[in-house]
Amino acid sequence: MDPVADLTPAQARERFRAGERVPTAGWCAGWAQANLIAVPRELAHDLLLFAHRNAQACPLLDVGEPGAVSTRLFPGDLRTDLPGYRIYRDGRPVADADEVVQEWRPDLVPFLLGCSFTFERALLAAGVPVRHLELGLNVPMYRTDVPCVPAGPLSGPLVVSMRPIPEELVATAIEVSGRYPRVHGAPVHAGDPAGLGIRDLGAPDFGDPVEVRPGEVPVFWACGVTPQVAVMAGGVEFAIGHLPGHMAIIDARDDDYRET
Amino acid sequence: MDPVADLTPAQARERFRAGERVPTAGWCAGWAQANLIAVPRELAHDLLLFAHRNAQACPLLDVGEPGAVSTRLFPGDLRTDLPGYRIYRDGRPVADADEVVQEWRPDLVPFLLGCSFTFERALLAAGVPVRHLELGLNVPMYRTDVPCVPAGPLSGPLVVSMRPIPEELVATAIEVSGRYPRVHGAPVHAGDPAGLGIRDLGAPDFGDPVEVRPGEVPVFWACGVTPQVAVMAGGVEFAIGHLPGHMAIIDARDDDYRET
Repeated sequence: MDPVADLTPAQARERFRAGERVPTAGWCAGWAQANLIAVPRELAHDLLLFAHRNAQACPLLDVGEPGAVSTRLFPGDLRTDLPGYRIYRDGRPVADADEVVQEWRPDLVPFLLGCSFTFERALLAAGVPVRHLELGLNVPMYRTDVPCVPAGPLSGPLVVSMRPIPEELVATAIEVSGRYPRVHGAPVHAGDPAGLGIRDLGAPDFGDPVEVRPGEVPVFWACGVTPQVAVMAGGVEFAIGHLPGHMAIIDARDDDYRET
Repeated sequence: MDPVADLTPAQARERFRAGERVPTAGWCAGWAQANLIAVPRELAHDLLLFAHRNAQACPLLDVGEPGAVSTRLFPGDLRTDLPGYRIYRDGRPVADADEVVQEWRPDLVPFLLGCSFTFERALLAAGVPVRHLELGLNVPMYRTDVPCVPAGPLSGPLVVSMRPIPEELVATAIEVSGRYPRVHGAPVHAGDPAGLGIRDLGAPDFGDPVEVRPGEVPVFWACGVTPQVAVMAGGVEFAIGHLPGHMAIIDARDDDYRET
Protein backbone atom coordinates (compact mmCIF):
# COMPACT_ATOMS: atom_id res chain seq x y z
CA MET A 1 0.00 0.00 0.00
CA ASP A 2 1.27 3.39 -0.96
CA PRO A 3 1.28 5.71 2.04
CA VAL A 4 0.93 8.85 -0.11
CA ALA A 5 -2.77 8.00 -0.20
CA ASP A 6 -2.90 8.65 3.52
CA LEU A 7 -1.33 12.11 3.45
CA THR A 8 -3.32 15.26 4.10
CA PRO A 9 -3.17 17.99 1.46
CA ALA A 10 -0.92 20.06 3.76
CA GLN A 11 1.48 17.13 4.17
CA ALA A 12 1.55 16.51 0.42
CA ARG A 13 2.18 20.18 -0.30
CA GLU A 14 5.07 20.13 2.17
CA ARG A 15 6.67 17.26 0.27
CA PHE A 16 6.24 19.01 -3.05
CA ARG A 17 7.65 22.21 -1.55
CA ALA A 18 10.70 20.16 -0.57
CA GLY A 19 11.20 19.29 -4.23
CA GLU A 20 9.42 15.98 -4.91
CA ARG A 21 8.26 15.85 -8.54
CA VAL A 22 5.70 13.13 -9.05
CA PRO A 23 2.25 12.74 -10.64
CA THR A 24 -0.43 13.11 -7.98
CA ALA A 25 -2.90 10.38 -9.02
CA GLY A 26 -3.61 8.35 -5.91
CA TRP A 27 -2.29 10.94 -3.48
CA CYS A 28 -4.36 12.12 -0.50
CA ALA A 29 -7.33 9.77 -0.75
CA GLY A 30 -10.58 11.59 -0.15
CA TRP A 31 -9.20 14.99 -1.12
CA ALA A 32 -9.75 16.88 -4.34
CA GLN A 33 -7.12 17.88 -6.88
CA ALA A 34 -7.02 20.83 -9.25
CA ASN A 35 -5.42 22.13 -12.41
CA LEU A 36 -3.47 25.40 -12.20
CA ILE A 37 -3.33 28.04 -14.89
CA ALA A 38 -2.04 31.51 -14.04
CA VAL A 39 -2.13 34.32 -16.59
CA PRO A 40 -1.48 38.06 -16.51
CA ARG A 41 -4.37 40.22 -15.28
CA GLU A 42 -4.76 41.57 -18.80
CA LEU A 43 -5.74 38.11 -20.04
CA ALA A 44 -7.74 37.04 -16.98
CA HIS A 45 -11.11 38.05 -18.43
CA ASP A 46 -10.49 36.00 -21.55
CA LEU A 47 -9.38 33.00 -19.53
CA LEU A 48 -12.37 33.22 -17.22
CA LEU A 49 -14.64 33.48 -20.26
CA PHE A 50 -12.84 30.55 -21.92
CA ALA A 51 -13.47 28.52 -18.77
CA HIS A 52 -17.13 29.50 -18.75
CA ARG A 53 -17.56 28.64 -22.42
CA ASN A 54 -15.74 25.32 -22.10
CA ALA A 55 -16.98 24.39 -18.68
CA GLN A 56 -16.65 20.63 -18.96
CA ALA A 57 -12.92 20.95 -19.66
CA CYS A 58 -12.40 23.98 -17.41
CA PRO A 59 -14.68 23.68 -14.38
CA LEU A 60 -13.83 26.69 -12.26
CA LEU A 61 -13.17 25.90 -8.61
CA ASP A 62 -11.33 28.99 -7.41
CA VAL A 63 -9.75 32.22 -8.71
CA GLY A 64 -7.11 34.18 -6.84
CA GLU A 65 -6.41 37.88 -6.71
CA PRO A 66 -3.69 39.23 -9.03
CA GLY A 67 -0.31 38.22 -7.65
CA ALA A 68 -1.82 36.03 -4.93
CA VAL A 69 0.24 32.97 -4.01
CA SER A 70 -2.63 31.23 -2.25
CA THR A 71 -6.39 31.04 -2.63
CA ARG A 72 -9.34 30.01 -0.52
CA LEU A 73 -9.02 26.36 -1.56
CA PHE A 74 -5.21 26.35 -1.72
CA PRO A 75 -3.83 27.79 1.53
CA GLY A 76 -0.30 26.67 0.61
CA ASP A 77 2.05 28.55 -1.69
CA LEU A 78 1.04 28.22 -5.35
CA ARG A 79 4.64 28.92 -6.41
CA THR A 80 6.19 25.95 -4.60
CA ASP A 81 3.53 23.53 -3.36
CA LEU A 82 2.70 21.74 -6.60
CA PRO A 83 5.02 18.91 -7.62
CA GLY A 84 5.71 20.41 -11.03
CA TYR A 85 5.15 23.47 -13.20
CA ARG A 86 5.27 24.36 -16.88
CA ILE A 87 6.21 27.91 -17.86
CA TYR A 88 5.01 29.48 -21.12
CA ARG A 89 6.34 32.53 -22.94
CA ASP A 90 4.76 33.80 -26.14
CA GLY A 91 2.70 30.65 -26.35
CA ARG A 92 5.61 28.25 -26.08
CA PRO A 93 6.52 26.03 -23.13
CA VAL A 94 9.99 27.27 -22.20
CA ALA A 95 10.68 25.33 -19.01
CA ASP A 96 9.38 22.75 -16.58
CA ALA A 97 10.22 23.52 -12.98
CA ASP A 98 9.87 22.32 -9.39
CA GLU A 99 8.99 25.83 -8.24
CA VAL A 100 8.25 29.19 -9.83
CA VAL A 101 9.12 31.68 -7.09
CA GLN A 102 11.21 33.86 -9.40
CA GLU A 103 8.74 33.64 -12.28
CA TRP A 104 5.55 34.48 -10.33
CA ARG A 105 4.57 38.04 -11.25
CA PRO A 106 2.47 40.53 -9.29
CA ASP A 107 -0.05 40.66 -12.14
CA LEU A 108 -0.56 36.89 -12.39
CA VAL A 109 -4.11 35.71 -11.73
CA PRO A 110 -4.21 32.06 -10.61
CA PHE A 111 -7.11 29.84 -11.64
CA LEU A 112 -7.82 26.42 -10.11
CA LEU A 113 -9.89 24.08 -12.27
CA GLY A 114 -11.36 20.70 -11.39
CA CYS A 115 -9.36 17.52 -12.10
CA SER A 116 -10.63 14.02 -12.82
CA PHE A 117 -8.19 12.50 -10.31
CA THR A 118 -10.81 13.69 -7.83
CA PHE A 119 -13.28 10.93 -8.77
CA GLU A 120 -10.79 8.08 -9.11
CA ARG A 121 -11.35 6.99 -5.52
CA ALA A 122 -15.07 6.73 -6.32
CA LEU A 123 -14.28 4.66 -9.44
CA LEU A 124 -12.20 2.25 -7.36
CA ALA A 125 -14.92 2.06 -4.71
CA ALA A 126 -17.39 1.08 -7.44
CA GLY A 127 -15.09 -1.70 -8.59
CA VAL A 128 -13.77 0.12 -11.65
CA PRO A 129 -10.01 -0.42 -12.00
CA VAL A 130 -7.77 2.55 -12.81
CA ARG A 131 -4.81 1.35 -14.85
CA HIS A 132 -2.41 4.26 -14.29
CA LEU A 133 -2.94 3.94 -10.52
CA GLU A 134 -2.19 0.21 -10.69
CA LEU A 135 1.01 0.92 -12.60
CA GLY A 136 2.08 3.98 -10.62
CA LEU A 137 2.10 6.08 -13.80
CA ASN A 138 0.75 9.44 -14.89
CA VAL A 139 -2.59 9.37 -16.70
CA PRO A 140 -2.28 9.55 -20.52
CA MET A 141 -3.64 12.77 -22.05
CA TYR A 142 -4.33 13.59 -25.69
CA ARG A 143 -5.14 16.57 -27.86
CA THR A 144 -8.35 15.92 -29.78
CA ASP A 145 -9.82 17.37 -32.96
CA VAL A 146 -12.75 18.81 -30.97
CA PRO A 147 -12.45 22.60 -31.01
CA CYS A 148 -13.08 24.64 -27.88
CA VAL A 149 -15.24 27.75 -28.01
CA PRO A 150 -12.71 30.60 -28.28
CA ALA A 151 -12.49 33.61 -25.96
CA GLY A 152 -10.27 36.49 -27.00
CA PRO A 153 -6.95 35.02 -28.17
CA LEU A 154 -7.63 31.71 -26.45
CA SER A 155 -8.68 28.83 -28.65
CA GLY A 156 -7.58 25.32 -29.44
CA PRO A 157 -8.63 21.72 -29.09
CA LEU A 158 -10.18 19.89 -26.19
CA VAL A 159 -7.61 17.83 -24.29
CA VAL A 160 -8.77 14.54 -22.75
CA SER A 161 -7.47 12.00 -20.27
CA MET A 162 -7.94 8.29 -21.01
CA ARG A 163 -8.61 5.31 -18.78
CA PRO A 164 -9.01 1.78 -20.18
CA ILE A 165 -12.20 0.32 -18.68
CA PRO A 166 -13.43 -3.30 -18.92
CA GLU A 167 -16.42 -3.36 -21.28
CA GLU A 168 -18.82 -4.53 -18.60
CA LEU A 169 -17.84 -1.62 -16.34
CA VAL A 170 -18.07 1.25 -18.83
CA ALA A 171 -21.64 2.08 -17.79
CA THR A 172 -20.58 2.11 -14.15
CA ALA A 173 -17.62 4.40 -14.91
CA ILE A 174 -19.93 6.80 -16.75
CA GLU A 175 -22.47 6.77 -13.97
CA VAL A 176 -19.96 7.23 -11.15
CA SER A 177 -17.92 10.00 -12.78
CA GLY A 178 -21.15 11.69 -13.91
CA ARG A 179 -21.87 12.41 -10.26
CA TYR A 180 -18.87 14.76 -10.22
CA PRO A 181 -19.69 17.43 -12.84
CA ARG A 182 -17.33 20.02 -11.32
CA VAL A 183 -14.31 17.78 -11.83
CA HIS A 184 -15.12 16.98 -15.50
CA GLY A 185 -18.05 14.65 -14.82
CA ALA A 186 -19.04 11.95 -17.29
CA PRO A 187 -16.74 10.99 -20.19
CA VAL A 188 -16.87 12.87 -23.46
CA HIS A 189 -16.28 9.70 -25.47
CA ALA A 190 -15.87 5.93 -25.12
CA GLY A 191 -14.44 3.67 -27.77
CA ASP A 192 -12.57 4.32 -31.00
CA PRO A 193 -9.97 7.05 -30.38
CA ALA A 194 -10.44 8.15 -34.00
CA GLY A 195 -13.81 9.53 -32.90
CA LEU A 196 -11.81 12.29 -31.17
CA GLY A 197 -9.14 12.47 -33.87
CA ILE A 198 -6.61 10.61 -31.72
CA ARG A 199 -4.32 8.49 -33.93
CA ASP A 200 -2.16 6.58 -31.51
CA LEU A 201 -3.13 5.79 -27.94
CA GLY A 202 0.45 4.67 -27.40
CA ALA A 203 1.76 8.19 -27.91
CA PRO A 204 -0.06 10.52 -25.53
CA ASP A 205 0.62 14.26 -25.81
CA PHE A 206 1.00 14.46 -22.03
CA GLY A 207 1.55 11.85 -19.34
CA ASP A 208 2.40 8.17 -19.76
CA PRO A 209 0.97 5.60 -22.16
CA VAL A 210 -0.99 2.75 -20.59
CA GLU A 211 -2.04 -0.49 -22.25
CA VAL A 212 -5.63 -1.06 -23.39
CA ARG A 213 -6.13 -4.81 -23.01
CA PRO A 214 -8.54 -7.11 -24.85
CA GLY A 215 -12.04 -6.67 -23.48
CA GLU A 216 -11.32 -3.10 -22.43
CA VAL A 217 -12.64 0.15 -23.92
CA PRO A 218 -10.65 3.38 -23.92
CA VAL A 219 -12.77 5.96 -22.12
CA PHE A 220 -12.03 9.68 -22.44
CA TRP A 221 -12.72 12.49 -20.00
CA ALA A 222 -12.32 16.24 -20.57
CA CYS A 223 -9.02 17.41 -19.09
CA GLY A 224 -7.90 20.60 -17.36
CA VAL A 225 -4.76 20.77 -19.48
CA THR A 226 -7.07 22.22 -22.15
CA PRO A 227 -6.39 25.87 -21.14
CA GLN A 228 -2.63 25.29 -21.34
CA VAL A 229 -3.06 24.24 -24.96
CA ALA A 230 -5.24 27.33 -25.50
CA VAL A 231 -2.48 29.49 -24.01
CA MET A 232 -0.13 28.02 -26.59
CA ALA A 233 -2.56 28.43 -29.49
CA GLY A 234 -3.19 32.03 -28.45
CA GLY A 235 0.51 32.91 -28.29
CA VAL A 236 -0.05 34.25 -24.79
CA GLU A 237 2.84 36.39 -23.59
CA PHE A 238 3.27 34.63 -20.25
CA ALA A 239 1.55 31.90 -18.30
CA ILE A 240 2.31 29.28 -15.69
CA GLY A 241 0.49 25.95 -15.51
CA HIS A 242 0.93 22.80 -13.51
CA LEU A 243 3.02 20.10 -15.14
CA PRO A 244 0.31 17.81 -16.59
CA GLY A 245 -0.67 15.20 -14.01
CA HIS A 246 1.20 17.05 -11.26
CA MET A 247 -1.77 18.71 -9.64
CA ALA A 248 -2.58 21.18 -6.89
CA ILE A 249 -3.97 19.19 -3.98
CA ILE A 250 -6.59 21.41 -2.41
CA ASP A 251 -8.34 21.71 0.93
CA ALA A 252 -11.62 20.31 -0.36
CA ARG A 253 -12.96 16.77 -0.10
CA ASP A 254 -13.70 14.77 -3.23
CA ASP A 255 -17.21 14.39 -1.82
CA ASP A 256 -17.60 18.18 -1.88
CA TYR A 257 -17.87 17.84 -5.66
CA ARG A 258 -20.23 14.87 -5.61
CA GLU A 259 -23.77 15.72 -6.60
CA THR A 260 -26.64 13.54 -5.50
CA MET B 1 -55.40 40.62 -23.95
CA ASP B 2 -52.19 42.45 -24.37
CA PRO B 3 -50.73 41.87 -27.81
CA VAL B 4 -47.17 42.53 -26.63
CA ALA B 5 -47.22 38.95 -25.34
CA ASP B 6 -47.51 37.81 -28.94
CA LEU B 7 -44.52 39.71 -30.29
CA THR B 8 -41.31 38.01 -31.30
CA PRO B 9 -38.09 39.27 -29.69
CA ALA B 10 -37.14 40.96 -32.98
CA GLN B 11 -40.49 42.77 -33.11
CA ALA B 12 -40.17 43.87 -29.49
CA ARG B 13 -36.62 45.12 -30.07
CA GLU B 14 -37.85 47.12 -33.05
CA ARG B 15 -40.44 48.86 -30.86
CA PHE B 16 -37.85 49.64 -28.20
CA ARG B 17 -35.48 50.91 -30.89
CA ALA B 18 -38.27 53.27 -31.97
CA GLY B 19 -38.28 54.72 -28.46
CA GLU B 20 -40.89 52.85 -26.42
CA ARG B 21 -39.88 52.82 -22.73
CA VAL B 22 -41.84 50.20 -20.81
CA PRO B 23 -41.14 47.37 -18.37
CA THR B 24 -40.92 44.09 -20.26
CA ALA B 25 -42.76 41.74 -17.87
CA GLY B 26 -45.32 39.90 -19.95
CA TRP B 27 -43.71 40.72 -23.29
CA CYS B 28 -42.94 38.03 -25.87
CA ALA B 29 -44.53 35.02 -24.20
CA GLY B 30 -42.30 31.97 -24.47
CA TRP B 31 -39.10 33.97 -24.92
CA ALA B 32 -36.40 34.63 -22.35
CA GLN B 33 -35.35 38.00 -20.98
CA ALA B 34 -31.98 39.16 -19.68
CA ASN B 35 -30.27 41.78 -17.55
CA LEU B 36 -27.61 43.94 -19.20
CA ILE B 37 -24.48 45.19 -17.53
CA ALA B 38 -21.65 46.57 -19.67
CA VAL B 39 -18.34 47.58 -18.11
CA PRO B 40 -14.93 48.63 -19.44
CA ARG B 41 -12.62 45.80 -20.48
CA GLU B 42 -10.37 46.64 -17.53
CA LEU B 43 -13.17 45.67 -15.14
CA ALA B 44 -14.53 42.73 -17.13
CA HIS B 45 -12.55 40.09 -15.25
CA ASP B 46 -13.83 41.36 -11.93
CA LEU B 47 -17.41 41.45 -13.19
CA LEU B 48 -17.18 37.95 -14.62
CA LEU B 49 -15.73 36.74 -11.34
CA PHE B 50 -18.45 38.58 -9.40
CA ALA B 51 -21.03 36.81 -11.55
CA HIS B 52 -19.39 33.44 -10.94
CA ARG B 53 -19.19 34.03 -7.19
CA ASN B 54 -22.78 35.25 -6.96
CA ALA B 55 -24.28 32.95 -9.53
CA GLN B 56 -27.85 32.89 -8.26
CA ALA B 57 -28.11 36.67 -8.63
CA CYS B 58 -25.90 36.87 -11.73
CA PRO B 59 -26.48 33.77 -13.87
CA LEU B 60 -24.32 34.30 -16.91
CA LEU B 61 -26.11 33.74 -20.21
CA ASP B 62 -23.83 35.51 -22.69
CA VAL B 63 -20.77 37.78 -22.84
CA GLY B 64 -19.90 39.96 -25.80
CA GLU B 65 -16.56 41.03 -27.20
CA PRO B 66 -15.25 44.45 -26.12
CA GLY B 67 -17.22 47.12 -27.97
CA ALA B 68 -19.67 44.62 -29.44
CA VAL B 69 -23.21 45.92 -29.91
CA SER B 70 -24.71 42.48 -30.31
CA THR B 71 -24.07 39.01 -28.95
CA ARG B 72 -24.99 35.46 -29.84
CA LEU B 73 -28.25 35.64 -27.90
CA PHE B 74 -28.99 39.29 -28.71
CA PRO B 75 -28.68 39.80 -32.46
CA GLY B 76 -30.22 43.28 -32.19
CA ASP B 77 -28.32 46.43 -31.21
CA LEU B 78 -27.54 46.52 -27.49
CA ARG B 79 -27.32 50.32 -27.63
CA THR B 80 -30.88 50.88 -28.81
CA ASP B 81 -32.97 47.71 -28.55
CA LEU B 82 -33.69 47.68 -24.84
CA PRO B 83 -36.59 49.83 -23.65
CA GLY B 84 -34.45 51.69 -21.12
CA TYR B 85 -30.91 52.16 -19.88
CA ARG B 86 -29.16 53.48 -16.79
CA ILE B 87 -25.76 55.09 -17.16
CA TYR B 88 -23.22 55.11 -14.32
CA ARG B 89 -20.14 57.28 -13.86
CA ASP B 90 -17.82 56.91 -10.88
CA GLY B 91 -20.35 54.63 -9.24
CA ARG B 92 -23.27 57.01 -9.53
CA PRO B 93 -26.30 56.72 -11.82
CA VAL B 94 -26.04 59.87 -13.92
CA ALA B 95 -28.80 59.37 -16.47
CA ASP B 96 -31.60 57.11 -17.63
CA ALA B 97 -31.92 56.92 -21.38
CA ASP B 98 -33.87 55.37 -24.25
CA GLU B 99 -30.65 54.62 -26.13
CA VAL B 100 -26.93 54.79 -25.45
CA VAL B 101 -25.42 55.10 -28.93
CA GLN B 102 -23.19 58.02 -27.97
CA GLU B 103 -22.21 56.52 -24.64
CA TRP B 104 -21.25 53.04 -25.87
CA ARG B 105 -17.44 52.81 -25.80
CA PRO B 106 -15.17 50.53 -27.81
CA ASP B 107 -13.84 49.01 -24.59
CA LEU B 108 -17.25 48.15 -23.13
CA VAL B 109 -17.83 44.44 -22.51
CA PRO B 110 -21.55 43.56 -22.43
CA PHE B 111 -22.82 40.85 -20.10
CA LEU B 112 -26.30 39.33 -20.33
CA LEU B 113 -27.57 37.71 -17.12
CA GLY B 114 -30.71 35.67 -16.58
CA CYS B 115 -33.96 37.39 -15.50
CA SER B 116 -36.83 35.98 -13.47
CA PHE B 117 -39.38 37.36 -15.95
CA THR B 118 -38.34 34.28 -17.93
CA PHE B 119 -40.24 31.89 -15.63
CA GLU B 120 -43.36 34.01 -15.10
CA ARG B 121 -45.17 32.27 -17.96
CA ALA B 122 -44.49 28.96 -16.20
CA LEU B 123 -45.82 30.39 -12.92
CA LEU B 124 -49.03 31.45 -14.65
CA ALA B 125 -49.35 28.07 -16.36
CA ALA B 126 -49.10 26.41 -12.92
CA GLY B 127 -51.91 28.62 -11.62
CA VAL B 128 -49.67 31.00 -9.68
CA PRO B 129 -50.85 34.60 -10.15
CA VAL B 130 -48.27 37.31 -10.84
CA ARG B 131 -49.49 40.57 -9.35
CA HIS B 132 -47.35 43.04 -11.33
CA LEU B 133 -48.48 41.38 -14.57
CA GLU B 134 -52.12 41.69 -13.52
CA LEU B 135 -51.60 45.37 -12.77
CA GLY B 136 -49.41 46.17 -15.76
CA LEU B 137 -46.63 47.38 -13.46
CA ASN B 138 -42.92 46.83 -13.11
CA VAL B 139 -41.88 44.19 -10.57
CA PRO B 140 -40.81 45.64 -7.18
CA MET B 141 -37.11 45.20 -6.37
CA TYR B 142 -35.27 45.73 -3.08
CA ARG B 143 -31.76 45.96 -1.74
CA THR B 144 -31.27 43.41 1.03
CA ASP B 145 -28.81 43.15 3.89
CA VAL B 146 -27.36 39.96 2.38
CA PRO B 147 -23.81 40.70 1.23
CA CYS B 148 -22.54 39.41 -2.10
CA VAL B 149 -19.11 37.78 -2.36
CA PRO B 150 -16.84 40.61 -3.59
CA ALA B 151 -14.61 40.48 -6.66
CA GLY B 152 -12.05 43.25 -7.11
CA PRO B 153 -13.83 46.56 -6.42
CA LEU B 154 -17.27 44.99 -6.87
CA SER B 155 -19.24 44.31 -3.73
CA GLY B 156 -22.58 45.17 -2.25
CA PRO B 157 -25.89 43.64 -1.24
CA LEU B 158 -28.03 41.09 -3.00
CA VAL B 159 -30.97 42.70 -4.80
CA VAL B 160 -34.24 40.75 -4.94
CA SER B 161 -37.52 40.95 -6.82
CA MET B 162 -40.75 40.30 -4.92
CA ARG B 163 -44.01 38.63 -5.93
CA PRO B 164 -46.93 38.24 -3.51
CA ILE B 165 -48.06 34.60 -3.65
CA PRO B 166 -51.17 33.07 -2.05
CA GLU B 167 -50.05 30.93 0.89
CA GLU B 168 -51.36 27.73 -0.63
CA LEU B 169 -49.34 28.34 -3.82
CA VAL B 170 -45.95 29.20 -2.31
CA ALA B 171 -44.73 25.61 -2.61
CA THR B 172 -45.82 25.54 -6.26
CA ALA B 173 -44.04 28.83 -6.98
CA ILE B 174 -40.86 27.48 -5.39
CA GLU B 175 -41.06 24.24 -7.30
CA VAL B 176 -41.83 25.83 -10.68
CA SER B 177 -39.20 28.58 -10.50
CA GLY B 178 -36.70 26.07 -9.14
CA ARG B 179 -36.77 24.38 -12.54
CA TYR B 180 -35.12 27.49 -14.01
CA PRO B 181 -31.79 27.83 -12.18
CA ARG B 182 -30.17 29.90 -14.94
CA VAL B 183 -32.78 32.65 -14.56
CA HIS B 184 -32.45 32.89 -10.74
CA GLY B 185 -34.26 29.62 -9.94
CA ALA B 186 -36.02 29.10 -6.62
CA PRO B 187 -36.66 32.02 -4.26
CA VAL B 188 -34.03 33.10 -1.74
CA HIS B 189 -36.66 33.89 0.88
CA ALA B 190 -40.40 33.73 1.57
CA GLY B 191 -42.19 35.59 4.31
CA ASP B 192 -41.13 38.40 6.63
CA PRO B 193 -39.20 41.00 4.60
CA ALA B 194 -37.16 41.77 7.73
CA GLY B 195 -35.46 38.43 7.15
CA LEU B 196 -33.68 40.13 4.26
CA GLY B 197 -33.36 43.48 6.01
CA ILE B 198 -36.16 45.02 3.93
CA ARG B 199 -38.06 47.58 6.01
CA ASP B 200 -40.91 48.69 3.80
CA LEU B 201 -42.35 46.61 0.98
CA GLY B 202 -44.28 49.71 -0.09
CA ALA B 203 -41.06 51.51 -0.98
CA PRO B 204 -39.07 49.35 -3.40
CA ASP B 205 -35.60 50.53 -4.41
CA PHE B 206 -36.42 49.80 -8.05
CA GLY B 207 -39.69 49.19 -9.92
CA ASP B 208 -43.22 49.69 -8.66
CA PRO B 209 -44.79 48.75 -5.32
CA VAL B 210 -47.50 46.09 -5.44
CA GLU B 211 -49.95 45.19 -2.70
CA VAL B 212 -49.50 42.06 -0.57
CA ARG B 213 -53.05 41.01 0.31
CA PRO B 214 -54.29 39.01 3.30
CA GLY B 215 -53.52 35.34 2.79
CA GLU B 216 -50.51 36.15 0.59
CA VAL B 217 -46.83 35.73 1.34
CA PRO B 218 -44.16 38.00 -0.12
CA VAL B 219 -41.72 35.75 -2.01
CA PHE B 220 -38.28 37.01 -2.99
CA TRP B 221 -36.07 35.97 -5.89
CA ALA B 222 -32.45 36.96 -6.56
CA CYS B 223 -32.37 39.78 -9.11
CA GLY B 224 -30.00 40.71 -11.91
CA VAL B 225 -29.93 44.34 -10.81
CA THR B 226 -27.44 43.12 -8.19
CA PRO B 227 -24.37 43.89 -10.36
CA GLN B 228 -25.61 47.44 -10.95
CA VAL B 229 -25.63 47.99 -7.19
CA ALA B 230 -22.13 46.46 -7.05
CA VAL B 231 -21.00 48.88 -9.76
CA MET B 232 -22.23 51.71 -7.55
CA ALA B 233 -20.64 50.32 -4.38
CA GLY B 234 -17.36 49.85 -6.24
CA GLY B 235 -17.29 53.40 -7.56
CA VAL B 236 -16.78 52.00 -11.04
CA GLU B 237 -15.62 54.61 -13.53
CA PHE B 238 -18.20 53.83 -16.18
CA ALA B 239 -20.94 51.29 -16.74
CA ILE B 240 -24.23 50.92 -18.58
CA GLY B 241 -27.06 48.74 -17.30
CA HIS B 242 -30.63 48.18 -18.34
CA LEU B 243 -33.18 50.31 -16.58
CA PRO B 244 -34.47 47.92 -13.89
CA GLY B 245 -37.40 45.90 -15.24
CA HIS B 246 -36.68 47.08 -18.80
CA MET B 247 -34.94 43.98 -20.02
CA ALA B 248 -33.11 42.69 -23.07
CA ILE B 249 -35.45 40.27 -24.83
CA ILE B 250 -33.21 37.60 -26.27
CA ASP B 251 -33.40 34.98 -28.99
CA ALA B 252 -33.77 32.08 -26.57
CA ARG B 253 -36.93 30.32 -25.42
CA ASP B 254 -37.90 30.31 -21.76
CA ASP B 255 -37.91 26.52 -22.07
CA ASP B 256 -34.22 26.63 -23.02
CA TYR B 257 -33.54 27.45 -19.38
CA ARG B 258 -35.91 24.85 -17.94
CA GLU B 259 -34.16 21.90 -16.38
CA THR B 260 -35.94 18.60 -16.03
